[in-house]
Amino acid sequence: MENFTTNYFSSDFTLGILGGGQLGKMLLYETRKYDIRTKVLDPSSEAPSRIACNEFVQGNLLDYQTVYQFGKNVNTLTIEIENVNVQALEQLEKEGIVVFPSARNLKIIQNKGRQKLFYQNNNIPTATFSLFSSKEDFKKSLEKKEITLPLVWKSAQFGYDGNGVKIVRKYEDLEQLPDVECIVEQLVDFKNELAVIVARNPKGETVTYPVVEMEFHPEANQVEYVLCPARIDKKIAEKAEKIALQVAQALEHIGLLAVEMFQTQTDDILVNEIAPRPHNSGHFSIEGSYTNQFEQHLRSILNLPLGSTQNKAAAVMVNLVGEEGYFGDVVYQNIEKIMAIKGVTPHIYGKRETRPFRKMGHVTIIHSELKEARQIAQQVKQLIKVRSK
Amino acid sequence: MENFTTNYFSSDFTLGILGGGQLGKMLLYETRKYDIRTKVLDPSSEAPSRIACNEFVQGNLLDYQTVYQFGKNVNTLTIEIENVNVQALEQLEKEGIVVFPSARNLKIIQNKGRQKLFYQNNNIPTATFSLFSSKEDFKKSLEKKEITLPLVWKSAQFGYDGNGVKIVRKYEDLEQLPDVECIVEQLVDFKNELAVIVARNPKGETVTYPVVEMEFHPEANQVEYVLCPARIDKKIAEKAEKIALQVAQALEHIGLLAVEMFQTQTDDILVNEIAPRPHNSGHFSIEGSYTNQFEQHLRSILNLPLGSTQNKAAAVMVNLVGEEGYFGDVVYQNIEKIMAIKGVTPHIYGKRETRPFRKMGHVTIIHSELKEARQIAQQVKQLIKVRSK
Repeated sequence: MENFTTNYFSSDFTLGILGGGQLGKMLLYETRKYDIRTKVLDPSSEAPSRIACNEFVQGNLLDYQTVYQFGKNVNTLTIEIENVNVQALEQLEKEGIVVFPSARNLKIIQNKGRQKLFYQNNNIPTATFSLFSSKEDFKKSLEKKEITLPLVWKSAQFGYDGNGVKIVRKYEDLEQLPDVECIVEQLVDFKNELAVIVARNPKGETVTYPVVEMEFHPEANQVEYVLCPARIDKKIAEKAEKIALQVAQALEHIGLLAVEMFQTQTDDILVNEIAPRPHNSGHFSIEGSYTNQFEQHLRSILNLPLGSTQNKAAAVMVNLVGEEGYFGDVVYQNIEKIMAIKGVTPHIYGKRETRPFRKMGHVTIIHSELKEARQIAQQVKQLIKVRSK
Repeated sequence: MENFTTNYFSSDFTLGILGGGQLGKMLLYETRKYDIRTKVLDPSSEAPSRIACNEFVQGNLLDYQTVYQFGKNVNTLTIEIENVNVQALEQLEKEGIVVFPSARNLKIIQNKGRQKLFYQNNNIPTATFSLFSSKEDFKKSLEKKEITLPLVWKSAQFGYDGNGVKIVRKYEDLEQLPDVECIVEQLVDFKNELAVIVARNPKGETVTYPVVEMEFHPEANQVEYVLCPARIDKKIAEKAEKIALQVAQALEHIGLLAVEMFQTQTDDILVNEIAPRPHNSGHFSIEGSYTNQFEQHLRSILNLPLGSTQNKAAAVMVNLVGEEGYFGDVVYQNIEKIMAIKGVTPHIYGKRETRPFRKMGHVTIIHSELKEARQIAQQVKQLIKVRSK
């Protein structure tokens, strides 16, 4: 057995985290549990991770100097958001700082065009796509009938949580699109949206969480329910897990990798997009799994043994997003009513101000039976209202 | 249904916590989860709760002015250690600060003599005892043969974690005892040491956790293994739960109450001592229960609905105490080996310096089968070593 020489626990070892949002906040529960020193960089003075880290630095995640200076004084550097300055990470890697996920993988993932080319080059199934450096090129290709509507348009850069994704059904829809580098994909006729979280450590140990099934809010284009395990055939689940593993291995990824996929009408699995970090689709694991995704991310990037990904119970996760029409100081109406239901745990991210569709928290429902958990989730969704005073 | 008017979540409501040790640290995981503002008072600048609270105040928990000033600016005040200035709490209650557990209950519990008299006055079964205001009185009673050796001697004040408890087998053992107010009890011939955690909120809602079974380290007089559920007859479990509830109700207690009991050779249940807060015997609940004890404590004192106390899996908890002969900067030897075992979660409290028998952390083992969890716990105990560099 390998001899671990690094003492992470109650020591001077410092983990740097780029980004201080809710994912960082939940990651900090685990660094506190292990008493690992942390330093967080975030542009907002009110970042949810501001407290519970050992040191907080306010600064621009996309600025080379800010990220470089921040990273120089940590032992291992990780992220909770992809949109960070990769050039600084490349330099830090050269100088011997451990950076997981690697600068190389972040560079691939940050750009949806590069992501798609990576799938293509590694025989990873994904929706047919075209890559354009500008809106003009996209238009020309349409005019030449190289591609035909309807199509899904995605901004190549900074696509996050539904921003930068549009369905183009008719030529006039192009009007509203910004003139940026983009990919366009065939609309996939799918039965299910699935996700698999993979964890991989530097020794090459790999584990996958059970496949989850996602239901999206039709307007907000944000996940509304995540169910674990997914209500799919075992064979489909195995196929999805295999493909997720294939992606992680092709990337030689270290840390968590969330792989979002479509199950098509013909039961093909197509990779939609990936995130190199703890992910919304893994929040159920805090209550539902033997090892939650945040602890697993730490275990992976610190080259510790990976934990069991088995479920303790069936789990459903409901996102708490700001209700339409409400802005300002948040109130979680009926939170005490959902707390009275067995197996219901609300997570409040700590954003004081709500606005429509803003991710304010999530609720996990666990139950011995998935069917029951799903019913309670609907009840929870109907009861709780994220509004302003 | 009662209408909850207080908005605890992402609001200005402030919870004050007296004490910033490991119990406070774990309580803060839950205040972070709910985004409840917290303010912590602890004498040590290196208190484990120093980070993750919103405001930290360094000060003496036994000083009237310090506790009073600290409490004046919070909405609700709670404790993670009993030894705090109760007079200050009484004054704060008079001034309208919500204090849970109440000053009255803390006063009863702080003094073991008062605790025992309370059991007696409320028909709560407990070991026969005598109360002495000094060592001299104890000696006289022995000389008059009112009581006979062997006996368990307990300092009435500040008994915590085995300090202030001695077995007096022969007259000469008295030499080592300090001259303080004390109780002496008959030695109980017991089969098992059990504990039940009760939660009660201001509405009077009450829940109990399943009975746990404790195994003590013979030398350190600290709990070595806690097993949940206890390996006892259902009837004994019911009796223990009933008595625990009786104690909580007699105290009109608000918050958590950990009730430690003996199961005698004749299957009587005798209350040994109680703690009005999250307790070592409930740590298993973080991984093992639908609602962990820290979240439950918050739910109780904030008059929120109580959560399910059902187990997700069988659980065993192992205390991590400093090994004899080691002092100074702590190292958790073989921690990566125990982390490789399924269902094993270490908790590191964040104390930089180890010393013999110091509580440095704990490890939870969960498994579908209790027997398996207990075996793994032994393996864990044999592998991990809390030493210094």
